[in-house]
Amino acid sequence: MRLHVPIKLRWSDLDAYGHVNNAAMLRLLEEARIEAFWASDEHAVGGSTAVLDGRPGADTLTLIARQEIEYVAPIPYLRQPLDVQLWLGRLGGASLEVNYEVWSPEGAEPRTMFSRAATTIVLVDAESQRPRRINDREREAWTPYLDDPVQFTKR
Amino acid sequence: MRLHVPIKLRWSDLDAYGHVNNAAMLRLLEEARIEAFWASDEHAVGGSTAVLDGRPGADTLTLIARQEIEYVAPIPYLRQPLDVQLWLGRLGGASLEVNYEVWSPEGAEPRTMFSRAATTIVLVDAESQRPRRINDREREAWTPYLDDPVQFTKR
Amino acid sequence: MRLHVPIKLRWSDLDAYGHVNNAAMLRLLEEARIEAFWASDEHAVGGSTAVLDGRPGADTLTLIARQEIEYVAPIPYLRQPLDVQLWLGRLGGASLEVNYEVWSPEGAEPRTMFSRAATTIVLVDAESQRPRRINDREREAWTPYLDDPVQFTKR
Amino acid sequence: MRLHVPIKLRWSDLDAYGHVNNAAMLRLLEEARIEAFWASDEHAVGGSTAVLDGRPGADTLTLIARQEIEYVAPIPYLRQPLDVQLWLGRLGGASLEVNYEVWSPEGAEPRTMFSRAATTIVLVDAESQRPRRINDREREAWTPYLDDPVQFTKR
Repeated sequence: MRLHVPIKLRWSDLDAYGHVNNAAMLRLLEEARIEAFWASDEHAVGGSTAVLDGRPGADTLTLIARQEIEYVAPIPYLRQPLDVQLWLGRLGGASLEVNYEVWSPEGAEPRTMFSRAATTIVLVDAESQRPRRINDREREAWTPYLDDPVQFTKR
Repeated sequence: MRLHVPIKLRWSDLDAYGHVNNAAMLRLLEEARIEAFWASDEHAVGGSTAVLDGRPGADTLTLIARQEIEYVAPIPYLRQPLDVQLWLGRLGGASLEVNYEVWSPEGAEPRTMFSRAATTIVLVDAESQRPRRINDREREAWTPYLDDPVQFTKR
Repeated sequence: MRLHVPIKLRWSDLDAYGHVNNAAMLRLLEEARIEAFWASDEHAVGGSTAVLDGRPGADTLTLIARQEIEYVAPIPYLRQPLDVQLWLGRLGGASLEVNYEVWSPEGAEPRTMFSRAATTIVLVDAESQRPRRINDREREAWTPYLDDPVQFTKR
Repeated sequence: MRLHVPIKLRWSDLDAYGHVNNAAMLRLLEEARIEAFWASDEHAVGGSTAVLDGRPGADTLTLIARQEIEYVAPIPYLRQPLDVQLWLGRLGGASLEVNYEVWSPEGAEPRTMFSRAATTIVLVDAESQRPRRINDREREAWTPYLDDPVQFTKR
């Protein structure tokens, strides 16, 4: 199962070439990831997946260990939000791999896939600064989103 | 052979965790890459490697096709420039792979390697918008920096 | 009359102090301004105000001549969009002044005003690179939003 | 007396118009200000002016209360560092106003002034979260740089 998180571009995501900058793309994935997996009193796109408190001062830090991204097509400036699709390619003991496909806005035809990506996240105990195990509540919330890992084609 | 490009952090590279943000890291690699490979009337760290005109309006666009990065240790705020080391892991027909290791500032002891990364670049003809072959001048300038591809350990 | 443009924070708008960075604030104003005043085939918050084509390659460039901003209260990380309120403090011959107040999310009580700001914009003809007059269509669209200039208190 | 702080542009400071973005300009001023006024074990452009510990966790927070900036000429991509000139337009009880002029790189002829700006900073005690007075050591270090306030021409 995939989560669909709408992510709005900013004008400042474009670089002097007039396309979304390659580093800005990782900002968009970061936003989608936070929206999907971080708890929030206010609202949650991910519903039951948002069980992680990622705020500064929280008990758990989320450390990024690795990222991989393939840029399939350049992204122009778009007013409607991108459709960032997320799922889990792996759910380990103390780490997980978030997978993504970034698509053109929902409702726009034809649909274009702009990029695919993966982020490896390690859960770290804020006090001990050591990796901590994914707990039962998290595992239960996230397991429905476990699916085949993204297939990269340009390695 | 490796190029050593000093890259200065900005305060705004830090996120609310107080470390260099994972997406900001790609900005630093971008700066190092431009410094090393883009021609400049003014100066060139890379000397003879800087044979590519990457400015808007130039004949050749450099398209990023793929990036991979491993975050080995978090980077605190540092005043002295990071030591970004670059070389080429592959030199193909119309594309090349830039490899990086990001190290703590030169002169500081002990030295820490903060991350390793790879960027696949495709040279695109600005007019036809199609990939174009690496020319002789470029190949001659870049070949001395061809070395073993970076070994990722967290795939 | 004021326009209300909802602007979503990004995690990367925070700096190492855990608040929205002072420079990031100008990005948020930029987003609100574009949303309100730039034409878009897709949608327009500002409705009839969005008569300006600000895209690269358009006939008119919008040049920022001046900005002033007062930071009244620090902005924490918020999931719900800020309520950026815009109006015109001045509508001149070839330039206009956009005024802003940035408020906590609509619906949240009590409401907090985080900052007030002003941006002077000059319309520039893309070909001649010279200022051009605000035309009748633009003046008609914008006049309803002309109001008393924002009062700065910290000069 | 003015401090001259060399500030290097990044490619990502440019927006889709190919010039340094108006919000990115404030990042450059922030860098120059930190370089000049924040203490550092490693080095200090400002020499004796750098008496303020602005790091997260320090006793004093520097709160930005107000900024004003005039954009005099667009800044293209430059490899050589901008010459950011700083001085103090006002030195109050618990606050100070930093003034800036941003010039084209030193050594390049003719010299161009790209922008002028002012930032009002309030020193805040980290524990009490209340403004604290500028102490004798700070006042002594900063007084030589007190000069006529920047004259804005576009208000």
